[in-house]
Amino acid sequence: MIHETVKIGKNVVLGEHAVIEENVVIGDNVTIGHHAIIKKDTQIGSGVKIGDLAVLGKAASSNKKMARQPKRTGAPLRIEDGAVVGASAVIYRDVLLEQGVFVGDMASIRENVAIGRESIIGRNAMVENNTRIGKRVTIQTGCYITADMTIEDEVFIGPCCSTSNDKYMGMGNYPYQGPIIKKGAKIGNNATLLPAVVIGEHAVIGAGAVVTKDVPAGKTAVGNPGRLLK
Amino acid sequence: MIHETVKIGKNVVLGEHAVIEENVVIGDNVTIGHHAIIKKDTQIGSGVKIGDLAVLGKAASSNKKMARQPKRTGAPLRIEDGAVVGASAVIYRDVLLEQGVFVGDMASIRENVAIGRESIIGRNAMVENNTRIGKRVTIQTGCYITADMTIEDEVFIGPCCSTSNDKYMGMGNYPYQGPIIKKGAKIGNNATLLPAVVIGEHAVIGAGAVVTKDVPAGKTAVGNPGRLLK
Amino acid sequence: MIHETVKIGKNVVLGEHAVIEENVVIGDNVTIGHHAIIKKDTQIGSGVKIGDLAVLGKAASSNKKMARQPKRTGAPLRIEDGAVVGASAVIYRDVLLEQGVFVGDMASIRENVAIGRESIIGRNAMVENNTRIGKRVTIQTGCYITADMTIEDEVFIGPCCSTSNDKYMGMGNYPYQGPIIKKGAKIGNNATLLPAVVIGEHAVIGAGAVVTKDVPAGKTAVGNPGRLLK
Repeated sequence: MIHETVKIGKNVVLGEHAVIEENVVIGDNVTIGHHAIIKKDTQIGSGVKIGDLAVLGKAASSNKKMARQPKRTGAPLRIEDGAVVGASAVIYRDVLLEQGVFVGDMASIRENVAIGRESIIGRNAMVENNTRIGKRVTIQTGCYITADMTIEDEVFIGPCCSTSNDKYMGMGNYPYQGPIIKKGAKIGNNATLLPAVVIGEHAVIGAGAVVTKDVPAGKTAVGNPGRLLK
Repeated sequence: MIHETVKIGKNVVLGEHAVIEENVVIGDNVTIGHHAIIKKDTQIGSGVKIGDLAVLGKAASSNKKMARQPKRTGAPLRIEDGAVVGASAVIYRDVLLEQGVFVGDMASIRENVAIGRESIIGRNAMVENNTRIGKRVTIQTGCYITADMTIEDEVFIGPCCSTSNDKYMGMGNYPYQGPIIKKGAKIGNNATLLPAVVIGEHAVIGAGAVVTKDVPAGKTAVGNPGRLLK
Repeated sequence: MIHETVKIGKNVVLGEHAVIEENVVIGDNVTIGHHAIIKKDTQIGSGVKIGDLAVLGKAASSNKKMARQPKRTGAPLRIEDGAVVGASAVIYRDVLLEQGVFVGDMASIRENVAIGRESIIGRNAMVENNTRIGKRVTIQTGCYITADMTIEDEVFIGPCCSTSNDKYMGMGNYPYQGPIIKKGAKIGNNATLLPAVVIGEHAVIGAGAVVTKDVPAGKTAVGNPGRLLK
């Protein structure tokens, strides 16, 4: 059943009805869940755990209404050693998960995204394309991480935070830019970040805040619209 | 394995372990993902792409606590030519997806819903029952579209917006009415719309706004509670 | 194909490619969807309906970055008579669903959680670990119920509400405490509750409110930050 181009290491546990497409490489001591789908070209390091019903290496898709058609680079999904992917997660081609990254159940990560060592992508979190996420970052359950966004090392983002990258909402006449969250900043649950805002190093955003302007390093912003605490 | 009542067109690609129940009709040039589940009576047009692990044509379900039991009309799910359905999406019976509609991964659409041509339902967006969505509408990732709601043509709804239809929260003693969003209106990310508010044509709602009253055509509302900008 | 340690009652309908692991007990008149995964030790009562692609009895998982490693007690998932679990839901070990509970499609419930009779966990709602939910509670679509939270009987939580339990956002130097929602309270859609706030009996929280302080019984709070209505 497994295609002849697939390479599978030692001590690999394959769940029932798992589907492994052509040209997949799987390292040693990997566990793959039941009904998991590993699409073509995906590269999985050693000691990785893939949950039941996960989809790895999905190609980008679109319809003709989309202002911005996805880029297809041909790069595969690469998952480094010791990473963990939850049940029913969907991860696209052209994604890099560095060593020890944790992706929760039902999370999804689109193409052209890199996630640094040991970072956590919570359950049901959605990460859009063209985004860079540093090392030891925590993105909690249900967050929405927009496209064209930068999240530096050791940032903490509480549950259900929402971000955007499109100042003119679908006009397609302006460069897209998501928020830039600098090292060690903390974002409270259900906060809203507008396009292109810069959250400075170690800044803190209160739960439910709506951040419309940049927040300087070390400062705290709360409210709607967000204002700095003295 | 395929039931004798199933009709499958030319050049159809069926994923591994896909389940096709009785009385399903599938047009030409359709692609169906691995482990996808096409439940009985579902009608799929030509050139449609169905993602891995998608569930099409689910019947409504309930428990006895629910104030409002779902209606079961017997109407099937119909997907018109050229539509695209993402991985792990769940779409109910008695839904119409017109030509070229795009439904993202992990999105869900309940019964008695119609979605117009080329509209986009983002990843992980949830659409409740008895709702009408026009043509060329964009509903971005993670939106919650409540029941008994109307969304006219060319509306844009940013990520994570939330709507409601139940003024008395579970009392069950009042007619349900979701928001009414008129043609071309734009809603910013993580905005909150209360039951029955009317968002006028080409009105704009700021990110994170909480809209408690109607917003006239062409006006902009921001803040909590939402107020009109001059 | 079914392991010899599995016990299955009368009139059980098993979907195609359903996976039943060792030591599972299934009562009479149970329906299990296609591609559903019932992991080891799970106990399912009579008349239960399990949706397509649901995962029942998942073990907790983690990576080394997590401040708080999950506890693994060995207790199984127990689902009492007449409960309904939606498509693509993921429910962990050490969970109790009492009689008649409804869990929507794509919802997820982590370990060490008990949910009382006839309560409703909406589609795509996420329930974290160590949380207690009473009887006849309604938690609507897309809610985020944090860890270490208490929800008493007959509470109503509107769509997309967000809660948190971690005052210092990832520092790991403080006891975690989620909100405490007392009997019969109602929470509007997309409201944000901060750690450890107490929502009194029959209190009402407006849609989009950000609740930073306790709300007394019978009072209504709205706005950001939330303030009491007179």
